[in-house]
Amino acid sequence: MDSKEFREFGKAMIDYVADYMDNIRDRNVLPSVEPGYLEKLVPKDTPELGEDWKSIMTDIERVIMPGITHWNSPHFHAYYPTACSFPSIVGEILSAGLSSIGFSWISSPACTELEVVMMNWLGNLLGLPETFLNSSSGPGGGTIQGSASEATLVGLLSAREKTVKELRENDPSLSESDIRGRLVAYTSDQANSSVEKAGLLGAVPMKHVPADENGCLRGEALQKAIDEDKRNNRIPFYVVATLGSTGTCAFDKLEEIGPICKKEGVWLHIDAAYAGTAFVCPEYRPLMKGVHYADSFNYNPHKWMLVNFDCSAMWFQNVKHLVESFNVDRIYLKHQHEGHAPDYRHWQIALGRRFRSLKLWFTLRIYGVEGIRNHVRSQIALAKYFEELVSGDSRFEVLTSNLGLVCFRLKGDDKLTKDLLQKITEKKKLYLISCYYRNKFVIRFVICSRLTNSSDVEFAWKEISGIANEIIPRKFFENVKMPSISSIADSCKNNGIVGLNDAFSKGAA
Amino acid sequence: MDSKEFREFGKAMIDYVADYMDNIRDRNVLPSVEPGYLEKLVPKDTPELGEDWKSIMTDIERVIMPGITHWNSPHFHAYYPTACSFPSIVGEILSAGLSSIGFSWISSPACTELEVVMMNWLGNLLGLPETFLNSSSGPGGGTIQGSASEATLVGLLSAREKTVKELRENDPSLSESDIRGRLVAYTSDQANSSVEKAGLLGAVPMKHVPADENGCLRGEALQKAIDEDKRNNRIPFYVVATLGSTGTCAFDKLEEIGPICKKEGVWLHIDAAYAGTAFVCPEYRPLMKGVHYADSFNYNPHKWMLVNFDCSAMWFQNVKHLVESFNVDRIYLKHQHEGHAPDYRHWQIALGRRFRSLKLWFTLRIYGVEGIRNHVRSQIALAKYFEELVSGDSRFEVLTSNLGLVCFRLKGDDKLTKDLLQKITEKKKLYLISCYYRNKFVIRFVICSRLTNSSDVEFAWKEISGIANEIIPRKFFENVKMPSISSIADSCKNNGIVGLNDAFSKGAA
Repeated sequence: MDSKEFREFGKAMIDYVADYMDNIRDRNVLPSVEPGYLEKLVPKDTPELGEDWKSIMTDIERVIMPGITHWNSPHFHAYYPTACSFPSIVGEILSAGLSSIGFSWISSPACTELEVVMMNWLGNLLGLPETFLNSSSGPGGGTIQGSASEATLVGLLSAREKTVKELRENDPSLSESDIRGRLVAYTSDQANSSVEKAGLLGAVPMKHVPADENGCLRGEALQKAIDEDKRNNRIPFYVVATLGSTGTCAFDKLEEIGPICKKEGVWLHIDAAYAGTAFVCPEYRPLMKGVHYADSFNYNPHKWMLVNFDCSAMWFQNVKHLVESFNVDRIYLKHQHEGHAPDYRHWQIALGRRFRSLKLWFTLRIYGVEGIRNHVRSQIALAKYFEELVSGDSRFEVLTSNLGLVCFRLKGDDKLTKDLLQKITEKKKLYLISCYYRNKFVIRFVICSRLTNSSDVEFAWKEISGIANEIIPRKFFENVKMPSISSIADSCKNNGIVGLNDAFSKGAA
Repeated sequence: MDSKEFREFGKAMIDYVADYMDNIRDRNVLPSVEPGYLEKLVPKDTPELGEDWKSIMTDIERVIMPGITHWNSPHFHAYYPTACSFPSIVGEILSAGLSSIGFSWISSPACTELEVVMMNWLGNLLGLPETFLNSSSGPGGGTIQGSASEATLVGLLSAREKTVKELRENDPSLSESDIRGRLVAYTSDQANSSVEKAGLLGAVPMKHVPADENGCLRGEALQKAIDEDKRNNRIPFYVVATLGSTGTCAFDKLEEIGPICKKEGVWLHIDAAYAGTAFVCPEYRPLMKGVHYADSFNYNPHKWMLVNFDCSAMWFQNVKHLVESFNVDRIYLKHQHEGHAPDYRHWQIALGRRFRSLKLWFTLRIYGVEGIRNHVRSQIALAKYFEELVSGDSRFEVLTSNLGLVCFRLKGDDKLTKDLLQKITEKKKLYLISCYYRNKFVIRFVICSRLTNSSDVEFAWKEISGIANEIIPRKFFENVKMPSISSIADSCKNNGIVGLNDAFSKGAA
């Protein structure tokens, strides 16, 4: 394929993606295929001769689209969002075109340096303590990881090696394997599965400390777990606190946990994968009070902040511990500028790395601080709108509502809500998933797509309440009322939620 | 940014990338900037208000390009290639547009299923044993990882957990931490730094077994290391063999190593990051003889096979060991189709994953088997051409020549070659790096860019030999001769290298 054909193919794909977004409401959010559908639609092997690009374009609708779960659909309310924005897609094109592999400064200086600056932009945008930033005079710094899973593991491995090194320095009689065998890490029983996985991969027990009745990890429970392990000759070394848990978007109490970690000499990592984006709005920063206690902090611009996957932002209070754990040098990686700029390969698991800061740069410039804040605020307002709709129906109860996530259920036995979710999923018009909260089965409703607007929320509610009619006899819901837009607006205002105009007109951006 | 603006911005970027490739020879391959250059060119913080996309386009030449090391330049001969092709870039656009996160089958069936099929296509393209393939009836299978570093670590962690589990099953009196403390892994002293790093991250010693004088790991040396460790009550559990070492592209002897690993019950992982692509040509498959002994095999289509980073292909003989080590389930990840298709999150470190098989599909279809083979063969022919040019100059010696990599030096003291490389690097017209071979300092010359043709090789040789003139007085090089194209063609033919027509006309593709 020469550059002339690339211009045609590339532009056809730009139009395809634009059309896809423009008409995304025409598609069911969930696909109808069964496992194994795709292999029947494609040849068994690579074609002997090259094909024309037009045959690929044709195959997208025939082969790919029937099997897509549409994360961009305004009717996707499952998991948490995956970001997608137009400037970010264009950033990917440039990144692919340059094909820089930024494992060291010299391997492509712009790749390292734009990342250094972008991590400062982001840190300031979130209101993080300056000690985390590359621009501070201290040993802190930020980098882009591939995912929150990776960040949690990187934090764990750094903490582990730091602990082993320090304990052996203090007491050379201790054997390395003895120390490693006694290490223990902690997180809440509400933490994401990737935290438990980090423990598995790092070969250390990751203990699930019981959260309180609101799903928050509290200092008392953590202290109790640490004390018990110390009595049993264990070595506590790592705590993962969650800001915005996967189930219900609960916030662990950093102000209680942080001082305990300091006192015990335990590395505190904060996983704010989804909720971190909210901190671009000053009114949500109280939710991260105590963040200065953290040794590392991570959130995903690729979740809620409009930057396409993968772009997971991670900061450290002291990069030295990380680099000492991860540094493996070779003559072919050496260059004369070492020490004057970070060689980011020492900050992550892999050697190679893409030029991911480009899409971050493009996105932040196109939206600006104002645009990002509007996006966050309007999505929270939409969740609030959904909450009000659910609350107005006496068959339902809302159990939690935090940021863009509302957890609700049908009153009564779990079976009712399970039936409801199954019927919703079978219809494929909405995608929602479940979790347990206070031993009750609940449905999670998340505002995910950048394109979701108030009509989409109303569509979702009509679907859900309509299906509920099949489960609960009519006599039970005579009191159903649809709240007026103005009552929602008032309610939002009373809760300090702004940005309604955007949310109720055209969606976020 | 609305879809109308995206169409304009996206198409402008397509044209920018096409123009960049068309005119890439106008740029120095190495940048002239100093560390810290970029922060002076951009604001300290995110702009308050969103900007126009045209201002971003303008800033690419002003801010980014001065700091780019041009991996796509035909004058880039450092490290190993990073792949870039037009169909692959277009695949990235669709992947970004769909924004699928394929952690489970239901999270986007096409994302899982196309990967399953593509890994079969690739396995067959390389001539791998069928037991590795998803399409086989056995427990094998393939997946896309982010990098060879990640693949080596995934292999190590699977092997580690499998070993701990099996030993404890055999002898429940063994403590887990005792086993972990006695584990030991092996690789050659020529292996990539990422293998040593995998040992660090996995908290197991990664022993560097001395390679033979050709840089190859041999059975005898491995057996000696294993025996010694067993005598010292260690537990050998993992061997990483390299096909195409980073320094000189040497090949470890699988036929010697494989039977030892089988006999000792040690997991054998093969890292063929760069050289794996050569196996698409049947004439190079003898270099992987013994591959059937491997428990896991990895190579990077994102290096030499025209698929943009990241796309690292990894196969396992038995996926069960992997999934058992990595499986952490949660209610919010469950779906009704479990067991009917792989949930790839259990095959890797992170939970999230991009739709990377799209770019693989696009690339394989546009090039076809024939196009990929032509690419490989013509790049090897170009390396052979360079080798002949160097060999024709009596001041120089070629120490190794394997696939697309030629290692050469000036005869005599290392200082001469070090001076030569420094002067080449300072001129910024070519990018080459060094390594040591048999205790001598050598320069590595790799055919990297898809765009490199015979004129580029001649350009490189004129640069190198011209700079050599500054180092070695003229009287020493009276015998310099430029070999004729026909003599190179004969030489290639005698060495079983085909595909010259492509290489000597227009470059690879």
